[in-house]
Amino acid sequence: VKILFIGDVSGTVGQKMVHDYLPQLRQVYKPQVIILNGENAAEGRGITEKIYKEFLTQGVDCITMGNHTWDNYDLFNFIEEATHIIRPANYENNDLIPGVGMRIIKINKQKIAVINLTGRSYMGSFDDPFRVGDELIAQAKKETNQIFIDFHAEATSEKQAAGWYFDGKASAVVGTHTHVQTNDARILPKGTAYQTDVGMTGFYNGILGMEKEAIIENFRTQMPTRFTTPESGSGQLNACLVETDDKTGQAKKIQPIRIDEDTLFMD
Amino acid sequence: VKILFIGDVSGTVGQKMVHDYLPQLRQVYKPQVIILNGENAAEGRGITEKIYKEFLTQGVDCITMGNHTWDNYDLFNFIEEATHIIRPANYENNDLIPGVGMRIIKINKQKIAVINLTGRSYMGSFDDPFRVGDELIAQAKKETNQIFIDFHAEATSEKQAAGWYFDGKASAVVGTHTHVQTNDARILPKGTAYQTDVGMTGFYNGILGMEKEAIIENFRTQMPTRFTTPESGSGQLNACLVETDDKTGQAKKIQPIRIDEDTLFMD
Amino acid sequence: VKILFIGDVSGTVGQKMVHDYLPQLRQVYKPQVIILNGENAAEGRGITEKIYKEFLTQGVDCITMGNHTWDNYDLFNFIEEATHIIRPANYENNDLIPGVGMRIIKINKQKIAVINLTGRSYMGSFDDPFRVGDELIAQAKKETNQIFIDFHAEATSEKQAAGWYFDGKASAVVGTHTHVQTNDARILPKGTAYQTDVGMTGFYNGILGMEKEAIIENFRTQMPTRFTTPESGSGQLNACLVETDDKTGQAKKIQPIRIDEDTLFMD
Amino acid sequence: VKILFIGDVSGTVGQKMVHDYLPQLRQVYKPQVIILNGENAAEGRGITEKIYKEFLTQGVDCITMGNHTWDNYDLFNFIEEATHIIRPANYENNDLIPGVGMRIIKINKQKIAVINLTGRSYMGSFDDPFRVGDELIAQAKKETNQIFIDFHAEATSEKQAAGWYFDGKASAVVGTHTHVQTNDARILPKGTAYQTDVGMTGFYNGILGMEKEAIIENFRTQMPTRFTTPESGSGQLNACLVETDDKTGQAKKIQPIRIDEDTLFMD
Ligand SMILES: [Fe+2]
Ligand SMILES: [Fe+2]
Ligand SMILES: [Fe+2]
Ligand SMILES: [Fe+2]
Ligand SMILES: [Fe+2]
Ligand SMILES: [Fe+2]
Ligand SMILES: [Fe+2]
Ligand SMILES: [Fe+2]
Repeated sequence: VKILFIGDVSGTVGQKMVHDYLPQLRQVYKPQVIILNGENAAEGRGITEKIYKEFLTQGVDCITMGNHTWDNYDLFNFIEEATHIIRPANYENNDLIPGVGMRIIKINKQKIAVINLTGRSYMGSFDDPFRVGDELIAQAKKETNQIFIDFHAEATSEKQAAGWYFDGKASAVVGTHTHVQTNDARILPKGTAYQTDVGMTGFYNGILGMEKEAIIENFRTQMPTRFTTPESGSGQLNACLVETDDKTGQAKKIQPIRIDEDTLFMD
Repeated sequence: VKILFIGDVSGTVGQKMVHDYLPQLRQVYKPQVIILNGENAAEGRGITEKIYKEFLTQGVDCITMGNHTWDNYDLFNFIEEATHIIRPANYENNDLIPGVGMRIIKINKQKIAVINLTGRSYMGSFDDPFRVGDELIAQAKKETNQIFIDFHAEATSEKQAAGWYFDGKASAVVGTHTHVQTNDARILPKGTAYQTDVGMTGFYNGILGMEKEAIIENFRTQMPTRFTTPESGSGQLNACLVETDDKTGQAKKIQPIRIDEDTLFMD
Repeated sequence: VKILFIGDVSGTVGQKMVHDYLPQLRQVYKPQVIILNGENAAEGRGITEKIYKEFLTQGVDCITMGNHTWDNYDLFNFIEEATHIIRPANYENNDLIPGVGMRIIKINKQKIAVINLTGRSYMGSFDDPFRVGDELIAQAKKETNQIFIDFHAEATSEKQAAGWYFDGKASAVVGTHTHVQTNDARILPKGTAYQTDVGMTGFYNGILGMEKEAIIENFRTQMPTRFTTPESGSGQLNACLVETDDKTGQAKKIQPIRIDEDTLFMD
Repeated sequence: VKILFIGDVSGTVGQKMVHDYLPQLRQVYKPQVIILNGENAAEGRGITEKIYKEFLTQGVDCITMGNHTWDNYDLFNFIEEATHIIRPANYENNDLIPGVGMRIIKINKQKIAVINLTGRSYMGSFDDPFRVGDELIAQAKKETNQIFIDFHAEATSEKQAAGWYFDGKASAVVGTHTHVQTNDARILPKGTAYQTDVGMTGFYNGILGMEKEAIIENFRTQMPTRFTTPESGSGQLNACLVETDDKTGQAKKIQPIRIDEDTLFMD
């Protein structure tokens, strides 16, 4: 199974990059499943129903989230019907939280389980993502060996720990949240594809996809400034392609994808 | 000027990787300056005089540090004579701290200023690295246009902010500390080479260069466990090569270097 | 000199407590100076010009702030003319920040220097409050020995450190920010009055002066909830009275004041 | 039931204060149960078997812990036999952790459930103390209405949240960890005794019971310094007395106790 995973799509520029490049990416890589992290899709903060539906129209199969899941209030209105959205699974009191943390997608004859977990280092209080991941994997294994984990976390140590912990249990553990693609994609010894962070998809000449001036001023003065994603500008798309064995679910290949003005996509 | 910068050398395996590959790196890339981050050289925690001297013997020109600078007590004994060590420059009360945060190295007819700054997000209390960086750059500019900054920080936002802030002022702003190489090396519009993190040099099949079991257990139980670097094992070397204009100091090129069992160094 | 200091006045209920009890407090304790922490005066977030002027009308001599200084945008409009407001003095780049961190108040023939410092543990990135405090004290000493420090901080360790560090240099070091009065008021050996936290002035049956339900829900679910101060309800006033030697500025007495439905103010 | 609870006993001076004053406290207040927080008993870091046994000899009924539970390795050796020690109950993976988080003590005909919970704000990753508390209370209620909770936490907001959340469910929710006694003891509307922090028992002229110099230096320089508890010196004892209805378990009274050179214990 070929899985294309697009990192944190941020604001209008990120949406445009998906719109402009997804057709080419599909043509070149022929992914059977397209997953996208959408926690920053709506001007950097959460997602709206309109954006969600546009992603589906473009062929996205499911959308993972992260610490910005609830930033846009609109999600509360449509999450119960949004059968393609996956928010972090490891809330302490998961029953109290709208939405779900794992979905099993059917693609032709294949089923793929997609799990969203969040780290805890510098991320707030959540349930142990290792144990919760184990539980969800056990549940998924009843239906499929194809298990994809978006591990949304800040600390590289926690992400590498997740990679090693789920090695041999999941098909892929790929990180999101730092918005910077890492150059460490590899297949771990027991067959799990791993990359610390896929990177973000959005405004290229900013900070994490946002206008840089307000962020620099905030770092320098500690004063409140308004962080915004621009309406237009040079864009970047960060993604990775994972290829797994159709039967065992073991990863055969992981390939980072980076498209921006310095690294043009060969078509 | 060609500058080779090797990321956080960790423990015995990291030292061995430097020992084994530096000759080849020198032969292939012909760097005029070799800088190395040594904050984890002594079993993951600081540096000793013995290790420091071995690095110099191998041709390292100077050694930057980070949040682990003082982990090995030995440094207090030799830092005042260690004219090739640079610890973070932006301590709040810099006068109370042993060592210096910038050094100007002379290589043939060239001078290169090397600056070590630490970020503050999730890193503790330090002076504003932006202002301190400006002050040191102004001081360095009296002698040279070649200015290399090792920005040791956790948050990608803070590192990107540093890249943009020093764009056009420094020849290069490259990050360390996360121990994972990022795939975002670029020349910023005003001529500064930038990479969010160079990555670490050490044990490849661990977490940040350390044995993985104790770290995973600690994440899962919050119990005290002892983090260690192994004495031997498969190694990784992460580095970057920056090439600058001899006169203006502007970056012409930045190239990430990754050597490990999955990405063998072409010799 | 008798100084009455009222802790973090929070929202409408806090304003009402000041309005209702300040006359009695003045009558009973006959303070020559009245200082109040106003960082939460406007519905828990910052202060407005209207509230500021009401405090002055009621006889407040000056108003210290804290981490919530800039929460209400109105302050940006009037701070330059607000000669009775003191925001934290230890911003990294103090020149870039509106307002001042110390004021010297004249009361009859006496002058009292009032300083606002913020701690750094769990509080963000600020300049060393110990060094900045030393500098401001040196400056104040040219005019007066009466030096009052509102040390706005979270960690008890940092506040006790400030107490000991400024012992003999300041007349009083009293803490704010935790919104809970501590039972440790004392005169330190060299003559500085100290109390870890004065406590807050506002809604008694909530959490830190705010409605409790949203806060509990947020702790339990990590979901966004709106924290609010109620418009009315049972109130609490927390304060302390410091008495200093008119000449030396040394503290002679420090007395906590707590008024609420369980601890009625004797009138 | 009269319960005497002594706050974080720190180092030799703390042990001595317990030794010297417990007989008087017993005589004056006639508590039926004596609980003590012992997380700092062994030189500020954890507890040893020797100290544990001395506390029992002196009449202590049970010992709660906190974030410093495992600082002294000795505890691992004796915790399974230490039937009077209670460590925080809300570990994420409680089954992996030695010891227990609740004990039911029998005193004559009465049973008292003692629960140790830790907060999460600034404290690390733990399970939701509210839900875990609910579960333990439900379990305890099968045997007794007398339920005492030591809520070990940093943030006043989280402690007040715990007080309100368990109001009417527990006999008492008293805080520890900040080492400074708060002046806010009260009976909440539904009958739970509450105090944000009981304070610590140990060296009076230091910072949180430790020598002040090293801590101040660390705050000022960010350099490693060794925090130590002194062998002797002026001591402080912080405690509270809670009195509950023998049948309902509802609190009838809560009284803070503070003994130090400024606040001598009336005997
Ligand atoms: Fe994101
Ligand atoms: Fe995120
Ligand atoms: Fe490092
Ligand atoms: Fe580091
Ligand atoms: Fe406040
Ligand atoms: Fe505050
Ligand atoms: Fe403690
Ligand atoms: Fe503690």
